[in-house]
Amino acid sequence: MGLLFKNEGHVVFKPAKDVDLTPASSELYLRANVKAPRLAGFLVKVFAWFLESRIFGTLLLFILKRDNLIHKLVTNAELEEPPVHVPLHPFDDKEEQDVKQVGSELSPPELVQQAIECLPVSLEKTLNGSNFSFRHWTISDYSRAYTSGEITPRTVAEHLIAAIHESSTPPLQMSFFINYKAEDILKQATESTLRYEQGVPISALDGVPIAIKDEIDCLPYPTTGGTKWLHNLRPCTDDACCVKCLRLCGAVLVGKTNMHELGAGTSGINPHYGATRNPYSRSKISGGSSSGSAAVVASGLCPVALGVDGGGSVRMPAALCGVVGLKPTFGRVPHSGVLPLNWTVGMVGILAGTVEDAFIVYAAISCQLPPRQLSLSPKVNFPLLNSTKPISSIKLAKYSEWFNDCSDDIRECCSNALERLQKQYGWKTVEVTIPEIEMMRLAHYVTIGSECSTSLSAFLEKLDFKELGWDARVALAVYGAFSSKEYIKAQKIRNRQMQFHMNLFTQADVIVSPTVGVTAYTILDDAFNTGELDYINGAALVRYSIAGNFLGLPAVTVPVGYDKSGLPIGLQLIGKPWSEATLIHIAFALQDLYVSEYRKPEVYYDLLNKNSVF
Amino acid sequence: MGLLFKNEGHVVFKPAKDVDLTPASSELYLRANVKAPRLAGFLVKVFAWFLESRIFGTLLLFILKRDNLIHKLVTNAELEEPPVHVPLHPFDDKEEQDVKQVGSELSPPELVQQAIECLPVSLEKTLNGSNFSFRHWTISDYSRAYTSGEITPRTVAEHLIAAIHESSTPPLQMSFFINYKAEDILKQATESTLRYEQGVPISALDGVPIAIKDEIDCLPYPTTGGTKWLHNLRPCTDDACCVKCLRLCGAVLVGKTNMHELGAGTSGINPHYGATRNPYSRSKISGGSSSGSAAVVASGLCPVALGVDGGGSVRMPAALCGVVGLKPTFGRVPHSGVLPLNWTVGMVGILAGTVEDAFIVYAAISCQLPPRQLSLSPKVNFPLLNSTKPISSIKLAKYSEWFNDCSDDIRECCSNALERLQKQYGWKTVEVTIPEIEMMRLAHYVTIGSECSTSLSAFLEKLDFKELGWDARVALAVYGAFSSKEYIKAQKIRNRQMQFHMNLFTQADVIVSPTVGVTAYTILDDAFNTGELDYINGAALVRYSIAGNFLGLPAVTVPVGYDKSGLPIGLQLIGKPWSEATLIHIAFALQDLYVSEYRKPEVYYDLLNKNSVF
Repeated sequence: MGLLFKNEGHVVFKPAKDVDLTPASSELYLRANVKAPRLAGFLVKVFAWFLESRIFGTLLLFILKRDNLIHKLVTNAELEEPPVHVPLHPFDDKEEQDVKQVGSELSPPELVQQAIECLPVSLEKTLNGSNFSFRHWTISDYSRAYTSGEITPRTVAEHLIAAIHESSTPPLQMSFFINYKAEDILKQATESTLRYEQGVPISALDGVPIAIKDEIDCLPYPTTGGTKWLHNLRPCTDDACCVKCLRLCGAVLVGKTNMHELGAGTSGINPHYGATRNPYSRSKISGGSSSGSAAVVASGLCPVALGVDGGGSVRMPAALCGVVGLKPTFGRVPHSGVLPLNWTVGMVGILAGTVEDAFIVYAAISCQLPPRQLSLSPKVNFPLLNSTKPISSIKLAKYSEWFNDCSDDIRECCSNALERLQKQYGWKTVEVTIPEIEMMRLAHYVTIGSECSTSLSAFLEKLDFKELGWDARVALAVYGAFSSKEYIKAQKIRNRQMQFHMNLFTQADVIVSPTVGVTAYTILDDAFNTGELDYINGAALVRYSIAGNFLGLPAVTVPVGYDKSGLPIGLQLIGKPWSEATLIHIAFALQDLYVSEYRKPEVYYDLLNKNSVF
Repeated sequence: MGLLFKNEGHVVFKPAKDVDLTPASSELYLRANVKAPRLAGFLVKVFAWFLESRIFGTLLLFILKRDNLIHKLVTNAELEEPPVHVPLHPFDDKEEQDVKQVGSELSPPELVQQAIECLPVSLEKTLNGSNFSFRHWTISDYSRAYTSGEITPRTVAEHLIAAIHESSTPPLQMSFFINYKAEDILKQATESTLRYEQGVPISALDGVPIAIKDEIDCLPYPTTGGTKWLHNLRPCTDDACCVKCLRLCGAVLVGKTNMHELGAGTSGINPHYGATRNPYSRSKISGGSSSGSAAVVASGLCPVALGVDGGGSVRMPAALCGVVGLKPTFGRVPHSGVLPLNWTVGMVGILAGTVEDAFIVYAAISCQLPPRQLSLSPKVNFPLLNSTKPISSIKLAKYSEWFNDCSDDIRECCSNALERLQKQYGWKTVEVTIPEIEMMRLAHYVTIGSECSTSLSAFLEKLDFKELGWDARVALAVYGAFSSKEYIKAQKIRNRQMQFHMNLFTQADVIVSPTVGVTAYTILDDAFNTGELDYINGAALVRYSIAGNFLGLPAVTVPVGYDKSGLPIGLQLIGKPWSEATLIHIAFALQDLYVSEYRKPEVYYDLLNKNSVF
């Protein structure tokens, strides 16, 4: 850990530039030192009561912060780097391979068209081939079926409404959605159907059902943030910028997906709207916080959904549910109309059945509608996925000790994926050391906790705490316990990690890792009403996510297999700032190796089959 | 205060864009509600002991924060703006009037030459005229005297060393310097003399004595920050970037000036190195924290000195000592090699006898030596002060309630200055409302306090607190008492104020105000050893300074008269981001109205007089 010396209370760090990032580095890999038993049911309540009491709470928080090494690695860390408060990278006009440069002043439908033109035509051929055991319907499949008149958006909407109803009620009770309105879905679908009938669909997204995480404003729905109260204090008065883009493309917005309350957890167990169940196994979690968005895509209800990723919240459920999860570079997608639960780590992300679909929706929402938020670059690169030759000479950085800190099945599966990439495409793996990963996790926790607590403070004052779930109460008590010194120290750690990662990216194009350290675990009975506190599983879930948020780096997860119980496993690729095109290209190549092996989830709806009945 | 409604505990603010900034605004001007008696001597000690005790301290800090409205206006403020952590403004390529655009890749001597070429030639004519009762020797005077051989840098250095010695010892005991080395001064001056003898001076700064605040690294001196210990824990190993620039120009760096300990106060009373006395009246403070830098310029020891301005620390002592103080836009002058006492409010600034000299040194240090820190703009504008016609149609924004919140003498003198500007140049004053100024002061205090406390935390752990002055102990106890929520709320307030000010700058070129609310006050006997806590005078001193730091705006103070006791008064001009050229131009025009009325300080050294004996 770049440390010069350490004593009982604190750690002194070498300047970031002096830290060795090679495999020969003496940096130690520190396993997450999580000291907290799993709590659910009555015990969570007792814990929350203690935390909220002035005297016991202060003491308990002190002990928690000490035992979890926050005092040692953050509060009392000695490090010379100045703080970096916002992970906004300067736009680098360097050339990416195999890309088309597109003006971001184009309208969302124009951007979608540009993206479609980058897709391989070969896909259609393989679509009807027999080399797939299971394949998600894609945006192109919808678009083609609508254009050919094989099925109408209206019929798909009817199927969808029936399917949502079935999935929401016994015996399934999947808890995918917090809100959906059949009437509103049908209205949009009818308008879309009319456009196809008149031969004037707006874009390839016209009539395509897309679900929105209930952290993103989307009319006519309230934005609950997974709570029972936030929408009453903060009314939703307009579509978020990203939702506006999708609506302009003709997409059918089908409702608001379930999420971990306030995004303050990784299980997706919501005491108010139900625990989102995993389509691959009803008894398992879907992961969070964008639990519903991942699950609706996995179960075939939508080819794509939007989520928000503040600490892996798009990538974790995507991996657990066997779908693609893409989190763009910080600042790429306008954040307006997203609940301001934090300001420096959260970003809109995309959950999709395939890399191509994640790319198309990325194209649509990376549009800079006025008022332009950052206007960092007038141009955006799109990957030429239709290139005849595979993307050449990619270097993949791997930090083995970190890579291997996961369950046996995941380790085996992800190592295998890496080997296949090398073998198939001739790419190279570069062994590296990424220092102080656990320190970054804690610094990120201090940051997101402080920002969430500040953002909600005005609301919490007016709130009867009984309206909050028990695990959210615990989270908020901890979130509110940080000093300004701890927050600023965390930003100094952000600077160190930025330097480490930018240095690593001079040696490699992407960093590869498993997406999560464990596959979907069982929802225990005692968790349904109170939520659960499971910081050990939680730490295993977020283990690989933090750089994407804390450093603003783009990242994507692609399904690369299943564990012994048939639960999905994802491989994560973390890219250089603003290099989504390269990242999508690599993800596409990776998907190509696995697409023939994908398995159908236990709960699955075949909406494009016109004879579907649910 | 933009408030929608308020209740006992907190205030709810209107969105910034909805706040009326016209004179008709219903926004209330809130006078600083400082609730703390002046403490010095034994009482400061008792207060510090209480604050540092765990139980009493927590309670006392709670009461202090509540009584000083921090809880109400910051901690519990409800405001929707996201935080802005760093006051870095996008570089705007708009045209400024009457400027020369200069490449910032030029070397410091080249930049100085470019600046010299912008100066009026007419100055030489008036120099020997009889229309000055007192005038500071300028860089041009030094340069001319050296070039003509009238006097050598070596002789000036000898005068200077004798003068410093005299000023430092009884009966004067001015406490201007923390450190100076006769040998080092003579060595530099001898080298400079040789260059003049060989006819190859490096620049107009060659041989010009310049003093450096002891917060800025300058070899061969330690950087004490006004303490007895910091230099032992943080050795000075190189010149700061700004000092490098001056050395490259041939300036003679004459030593490290006294300052308020850790910059944590506004009086300039330092218990370790003495209370810097005001050259206009030995019994008065010089102001702080750049006390020594202001006083050495006022007393004629140097035409220019460098300071650091984190909360008015350059402008306040400049105003109290009757010199010019210029604080450039945040990010304009590289900050490397300055004690990292904070990261988002402090900037290197210039204290000078005249606006021209502040401009020349600004030119020298705005150079971007590699490694380039921000490279915000490849160009920098220099004001054409030699323009034959005066700068035209300037609009001056004035917020009367704030402008008038100062002593009678200051109010009268500054109003008079404004009238003279209008009358002489035909400029217009625009009456405006600047909302929430007191809230900004508190937010700035939370910010600088949190950052200072974090920055010093590693050192403080190793420190025997007995080495700290008593008032610094109190300041550090308060600085360390803020939560991450308070820090982030303060950054939300920064966003609001940025919006207000950028809006005001669509109506006016500069904002005018007094520089400080009181003139130099008496150093009481009980303050010498313990320092003093005088938050009421402190609040009056910083009243007009905060926007320059918290919002990163450039600002300058120019002497415009004297109070009834003959103590100097300054008028402050606050400019748009990156508009130093316009600001300097206006300051120059202002100085022109007053230069014939300037008075000689009580303690003054005429170094360019070759027959000087001290």
